[in-house]
Amino acid sequence: MIYPRVGVIGTGLIGGSFALAAKKAEAIGHVIGVARSEATRQKALEIGAADEVTADPAEVVAKADLVYVAVPVGAMQSIFSRISDVAGSDTVITDAGSTKVQVMAAARKLLPDHVTFIGGHPLAGSEKVGIQAARADLFAGCTYFLVADEENDRDELARLMELIQALGAEPVLTDAERHDRMVAATSHLPHLLSAVLSTTVGTMVGGEPDAADFIGSGFRDTTRLAAGLPELWRDIFLTNDQNLARTMAAFVRQLQQFGYALRNKNHDQLEQLLNEARQWRQELDK
Amino acid sequence: MIYPRVGVIGTGLIGGSFALAAKKAEAIGHVIGVARSEATRQKALEIGAADEVTADPAEVVAKADLVYVAVPVGAMQSIFSRISDVAGSDTVITDAGSTKVQVMAAARKLLPDHVTFIGGHPLAGSEKVGIQAARADLFAGCTYFLVADEENDRDELARLMELIQALGAEPVLTDAERHDRMVAATSHLPHLLSAVLSTTVGTMVGGEPDAADFIGSGFRDTTRLAAGLPELWRDIFLTNDQNLARTMAAFVRQLQQFGYALRNKNHDQLEQLLNEARQWRQELDK
Repeated sequence: MIYPRVGVIGTGLIGGSFALAAKKAEAIGHVIGVARSEATRQKALEIGAADEVTADPAEVVAKADLVYVAVPVGAMQSIFSRISDVAGSDTVITDAGSTKVQVMAAARKLLPDHVTFIGGHPLAGSEKVGIQAARADLFAGCTYFLVADEENDRDELARLMELIQALGAEPVLTDAERHDRMVAATSHLPHLLSAVLSTTVGTMVGGEPDAADFIGSGFRDTTRLAAGLPELWRDIFLTNDQNLARTMAAFVRQLQQFGYALRNKNHDQLEQLLNEARQWRQELDK
Repeated sequence: MIYPRVGVIGTGLIGGSFALAAKKAEAIGHVIGVARSEATRQKALEIGAADEVTADPAEVVAKADLVYVAVPVGAMQSIFSRISDVAGSDTVITDAGSTKVQVMAAARKLLPDHVTFIGGHPLAGSEKVGIQAARADLFAGCTYFLVADEENDRDELARLMELIQALGAEPVLTDAERHDRMVAATSHLPHLLSAVLSTTVGTMVGGEPDAADFIGSGFRDTTRLAAGLPELWRDIFLTNDQNLARTMAAFVRQLQQFGYALRNKNHDQLEQLLNEARQWRQELDK
């Protein structure tokens, strides 16, 4: 048992799956789940993602060895403010936010110095959301980024990495700036384009009575991410806006290359561009 | 048995799957498969997608009730030219090309008037290609577009629709112009963006030694199409370039909306744009 008592603030898809996976691996003991909605709290108890529930984040912090904060990145600051006073000197706090620079800054600013805060980001998720979509294998085979300030206790970091491994994920240490820059390209840009594509196709053909006949697996795959929760992704984009803007600019430059080749009916250039894209896909999806 | 003798010109993913599905449904009898490569011909025989094989398209046309042309759209003209002289008055020819305006024009121009040509496009496929990826259920549940010139024999159209249904697909009659305009948005634009995204991410982070750590299911889903065959998609894009250019322009306008919202850190507008995208996804993926 790595952490006998754990508080999970935000028992949604990520928080709920974390609790299910860690309990299944017997890496954690008693779980106190925190959720604003009564229905979510009941569901968390029902599926075994929590042994005890409350609506008050502060309440669990005093009681827990590990506090797992799995709320949207836009809500992190308010959670940190609310738990700051009650966090004891042996409390370890981690989060599961998709961006890390602003979360780390908020933790440094709002949490007391005696607290060990280690940032986290499981590269897992789904367009499905909420505790009803939680499952014990959500993190299996995923990368799980950890961001530790230098002053962090190395023992606590090792302990947390052990927990991550128990979830079936691969812990990867990184720094917040690099993390946000990389995921802007590999995760946030795909999400943004998926949304833009969905609206483009919708506004172009969505009004036709037989539009659904023309929808195949290509559209479905490329727009799956567009089904994600708008509030969640709004916050992710806004807390990584500079990096995201850079990836968008790079994307537009590449798009222009395809546009030129198409306008000039340049067979060779078009094939070369498609070849390059295919090679990158093979290179990156290993 | 709808067609006792069928010639399949191009026993790749589509031609091979067509033969497997139609034979399984006992909708067709003897299949003569045409492929340039000896290995493909052997594989077609081996998996039962053909009972007899040849490298010569003209050879099968004289012997078949139905000729199914499943070559890349860029190769249609040359196939039509080669089979034109041998096509008898009771020959029915159909194709499986992803664009229809240029294929229909080529058929009108190159095939003799006594031939019944009905254009086709199964909205099925995969990033996998070749006879080794062929499977009898590839068309199950898919839309299968048919484009018939007014002068086409209605009986022949009804017979072909019966065959399409036997594959497990839903035959949908459309006209070539409308077909190409619609699939430019729902299929060709997703493919193009998938390729552009793959190259953008590749050039931005592909050189980092740990790039693979940052690749999750979001990138994989949105770039799956980028793994498709470059020659195939080059031809599809070039035979639908005007429509595709219009969808690209519409996409860039939508992308700019997201860019504005992000630059202005406009929470509400960004959430609204993401909401709209999500609603279109739900509306179209029914």
